[in-house]
Amino acid sequence: MNFLEEKILTDGVVKEGNVLKVDSFLNHRIDMAVMRGIADHFMRAFSDAGVNKVLTIEASGIAIATLLGHLLDVPVVFAKKSETANCTDDKYVAQAYSFTHRRHNSVFVSRPYLTADDRVLIVDDFLADGQAAHALIDLVRQAGGQVVGIGIAIEKGWQQGGRLLRQEGYRLESVAIVDAMDWRTQTVTFRPRESRD
Amino acid sequence: MNFLEEKILTDGVVKEGNVLKVDSFLNHRIDMAVMRGIADHFMRAFSDAGVNKVLTIEASGIAIATLLGHLLDVPVVFAKKSETANCTDDKYVAQAYSFTHRRHNSVFVSRPYLTADDRVLIVDDFLADGQAAHALIDLVRQAGGQVVGIGIAIEKGWQQGGRLLRQEGYRLESVAIVDAMDWRTQTVTFRPRESRD
Repeated sequence: MNFLEEKILTDGVVKEGNVLKVDSFLNHRIDMAVMRGIADHFMRAFSDAGVNKVLTIEASGIAIATLLGHLLDVPVVFAKKSETANCTDDKYVAQAYSFTHRRHNSVFVSRPYLTADDRVLIVDDFLADGQAAHALIDLVRQAGGQVVGIGIAIEKGWQQGGRLLRQEGYRLESVAIVDAMDWRTQTVTFRPRESRD
Repeated sequence: MNFLEEKILTDGVVKEGNVLKVDSFLNHRIDMAVMRGIADHFMRAFSDAGVNKVLTIEASGIAIATLLGHLLDVPVVFAKKSETANCTDDKYVAQAYSFTHRRHNSVFVSRPYLTADDRVLIVDDFLADGQAAHALIDLVRQAGGQVVGIGIAIEKGWQQGGRLLRQEGYRLESVAIVDAMDWRTQTVTFRPRESRD
């Protein structure tokens, strides 16, 4: 087990409805050792990818993105959410459906901050159905840039996001892939590294 | 002039209605040299304050807070916004009025993440009327902790937030204090360090 899988077992809480609460170290209180571990993991995984920009979506992806941007010394861009944004001359807009909030969200980036020269590493704290990741990919494509990798802290392996992104040929690296959880027994089952494709 | 004042003059844009756009380096695209400069500034300013936690509010405060938490090696907590949160057994809630969005927002932190042992450095990208800062102070007080400092990237010196916080005795350090702006001439006037109290 790696550091993040161990942390999930000790400090994560499984709630009814396949919810994994990690807000004691990942997305409300931020444990800096965990955050550094995640950023280091992505540094190593994408060391040959020629990353020149890190892209994430507000809010909880910003911590990972900032630390990674610091270590790689490349700018970070965070896409903003809006219920109402339309494509205009000054911004790229993509749609993401939130299963949690049961609504479509627009996500956008101001045009000057994504360009055709970008070799983008997309990062986020969670990957579930892949709606947010696909919206970010869409923004990079609209700008003519290239997505050279996707780094995720925790992938929910039973949801389709990871499978779709890998089928589409994206280089996806998740620090931990949770394949099953049981809130009654507080059991979390991780996908072993040798079973990943 | 310090690095941030210079950056504001070169890359900031003054818009009608006393709006200072700095999203090319501070709160949409993040310039890591600027971010490191801000975090270093707070490191020096509060080196004797015994900080053991950094607190900010989502979303754009998270980048500054994360880098500072990394440098100080202390945990970061970011307060969340909600239109509807009520005080409960599991969270502290405070109110902040948003002049930008003309509504009251609740901000909250889950109880375990603020404690009576906390010596908190509050950080944010902007300080205007001080509503967000006062809400964060309120959360720390509810937990019985101590606010040992407030670090702000850009203070709007003509609004009341900075004056109120200094009158209340808080140790407030703003990297740049803008005293006046003119969108017609794109002029930005900074408060000189010797004129600060």
